[in-house]
Amino acid sequence: MNVKDYMHTLGAAARAAARAIARAETRQKNQALLAMAAAIRRESAALLAANARDLAAARAAGLDAALLDRLAIDARAVDAMAEGLEQIAALGDPVGEISDLKYRPSGIQVGKMRVPLGVIGIIYEARPNVTADAAGLCLKSGNAAILRGGSEAAHSNQAIAACVREGLAAAGLPETVVQVVETTDRAAVGELITMKDFVDVIVPRGGKGLIERVTAEARVPVIKHLHGNCHVYVDDRADIAKAVRIVENAKTQRYGTCNTAESLLVARAIAPQALPPIGAMLAAKGVEMRGCPETLAILRAAPVAQERLRAATEADWSEEYLGPIIAVKVVADLDAAIAHINTHGSQHTDAIVTEDYGRARRFLREVDSASVMVNASTRFADGFEYGLGAEIGISTDKIHARGPVGLEGLTSQKWIVLGDGHVRG
Amino acid sequence: MNVKDYMHTLGAAARAAARAIARAETRQKNQALLAMAAAIRRESAALLAANARDLAAARAAGLDAALLDRLAIDARAVDAMAEGLEQIAALGDPVGEISDLKYRPSGIQVGKMRVPLGVIGIIYEARPNVTADAAGLCLKSGNAAILRGGSEAAHSNQAIAACVREGLAAAGLPETVVQVVETTDRAAVGELITMKDFVDVIVPRGGKGLIERVTAEARVPVIKHLHGNCHVYVDDRADIAKAVRIVENAKTQRYGTCNTAESLLVARAIAPQALPPIGAMLAAKGVEMRGCPETLAILRAAPVAQERLRAATEADWSEEYLGPIIAVKVVADLDAAIAHINTHGSQHTDAIVTEDYGRARRFLREVDSASVMVNASTRFADGFEYGLGAEIGISTDKIHARGPVGLEGLTSQKWIVLGDGHVRG
Repeated sequence: MNVKDYMHTLGAAARAAARAIARAETRQKNQALLAMAAAIRRESAALLAANARDLAAARAAGLDAALLDRLAIDARAVDAMAEGLEQIAALGDPVGEISDLKYRPSGIQVGKMRVPLGVIGIIYEARPNVTADAAGLCLKSGNAAILRGGSEAAHSNQAIAACVREGLAAAGLPETVVQVVETTDRAAVGELITMKDFVDVIVPRGGKGLIERVTAEARVPVIKHLHGNCHVYVDDRADIAKAVRIVENAKTQRYGTCNTAESLLVARAIAPQALPPIGAMLAAKGVEMRGCPETLAILRAAPVAQERLRAATEADWSEEYLGPIIAVKVVADLDAAIAHINTHGSQHTDAIVTEDYGRARRFLREVDSASVMVNASTRFADGFEYGLGAEIGISTDKIHARGPVGLEGLTSQKWIVLGDGHVRG
Repeated sequence: MNVKDYMHTLGAAARAAARAIARAETRQKNQALLAMAAAIRRESAALLAANARDLAAARAAGLDAALLDRLAIDARAVDAMAEGLEQIAALGDPVGEISDLKYRPSGIQVGKMRVPLGVIGIIYEARPNVTADAAGLCLKSGNAAILRGGSEAAHSNQAIAACVREGLAAAGLPETVVQVVETTDRAAVGELITMKDFVDVIVPRGGKGLIERVTAEARVPVIKHLHGNCHVYVDDRADIAKAVRIVENAKTQRYGTCNTAESLLVARAIAPQALPPIGAMLAAKGVEMRGCPETLAILRAAPVAQERLRAATEADWSEEYLGPIIAVKVVADLDAAIAHINTHGSQHTDAIVTEDYGRARRFLREVDSASVMVNASTRFADGFEYGLGAEIGISTDKIHARGPVGLEGLTSQKWIVLGDGHVRG
């Protein structure tokens, strides 16, 4: 079978399975999730053996250390996959929730019911844990899933897929509710993101290159997270101690995450007081600062390790470093900060540090990002921190899901109308 | 200037205007809406004169009667445009509404704020009233708009646009909040639906041809309403008098609307009792019935005007007639009805007539349409009937807005986080 026919076969099976999973009871979905978790724990040795085959092939092919690191799983990672599925089982079921049911003057009752999206295609890189995680989230939200993981993880993914299928079967659900693409032909991705009759939404998970390619070529709606150039703006009415603490956490708690701060803006009136302690903290943590001329002038006169200072170029204001580097700019005031963020930011997560009520209120309203924060670290932008219980990704789109996407982001709402023979006048 | 440069100029102006309108106060937006309405009333004669020029050109070009009918406005239509804007001014402002603000275990407060989408592109046919209506809805929901109406209505649209600009200026808002494309070059549409940097969402309003073309070529998200093949399913536990009344209203109240029923399904066990009175009613209203063999067998033996009966072909199950024709099929039971609707329907609006609690509950959950109804006419699927106060269209998509789209459908929600120096542990 050629790739197109193969993908269409998966698509047709997913469409049929979507109807079954959409009407499945919560108990049955939870039973499947727990059975998947049990199979993963039981098959731990087999999963590790499959992963070892993938790792050996990747090493033989000379793939880089970062890829090998993402690809590798150990007994603890297997356990975490099973636990993740158990946690999803413990979450509330979003499907079927009815809200806003009200009587209208015509006598009908109108409300909304939360429903699955249908078939979700997930495209991801060589991270085997995503296979279990995505399968669980799609299943619980009543969707069928077609999973296409990085080809380097093919053996690992198929071993996990077997556990997923076992769990579905144990609960009496069609095994086609979750299908893992078996071919490593890259044309499979092209089919997946264009077969509108079979796929309702695509969620790409991975680096910017993957997401840009998927977005450019998709003919199916995409819930995407492009990149995170998150800002902390230190307003001139900031509490400097809080500013130091928030910048430290936002920049240095983890360098590689999308909600890490990549840009620091400081109001001109407070820069001489705020920049030296922030700069000293960052330098001590080994963070390179790429500053505007005003920033450099202040920091060069301060007790800050001078080898951490560089002059920023225009490109720095849009950069996602994912490492121990931060762009630093002195801005005139709140208006300049908001304009800078809305121009150079990635609409992911941005924070203001201020004790001023009016400034906080304006920043919240006017910064056009998925998460906007006052006196809190950008690192809080996360499905678990927000109380979603799970997260399939962080959307930087404005349509449909925005920010951290949990089970609800994988659903839609339809209108329901209840009458008793009512007709329109 | 070529079309591409012209459209990019509009786009850049819209992007800048979107920031201004996003932070405008409710009072200011309402002031603009009321000033637009006043200008339209005052300029009634000028609008009618502009419309007369369009009509003369359309007649000279030999355009068909349906297009001339949509294109024509009279003094009453001008008044209705102004009233529409006044009604939008009276609606609540969705922008800035904060919901679900809760404390999390970390100490931060997390909630959602409703925000405009940004720049909305509206593409519509030669219906001048859409210009005022779309301008008002986009403005009130805090969005900038680029409107591209049918070229046959060019003079009418520019005359209305002048009133819209006057209203914006009177409220101190940039005139570029609403821009009406001046060129009639069709390449302008191609630019509008692909300039991702300047446009956040496209709303096509018009016939199936227009919407299919826009959807196929757009690189910007589209809120679309493709077509309406709405079903009424008469369950074997239906009250037949209610069934007759609902089918009459759903099919015959207006033939040309997307929420009109185009297909009637009847459970086999009740067909001998239900079909004759429904068939007699439809025949008396002059509606042609295209029936399956079982339907025809029952209706040929009943006191129903026989010249209204035709044999249905497979194509009839998917047809949107927009006229006095209905497809009629006898189905085995609820499962067959749901399967038929989910296969042949257009995910717009479908209704069951039943007195059975369990059947109603299953139909509500399992029919995968934007509006699902029990014992009510499909004609209720409408923004005003649902209490939205206004409607820019009816979406048959699942992502983002579904069903009737009012002001809320033109907004998104961002996350807000309030802390007091909180950092992630």
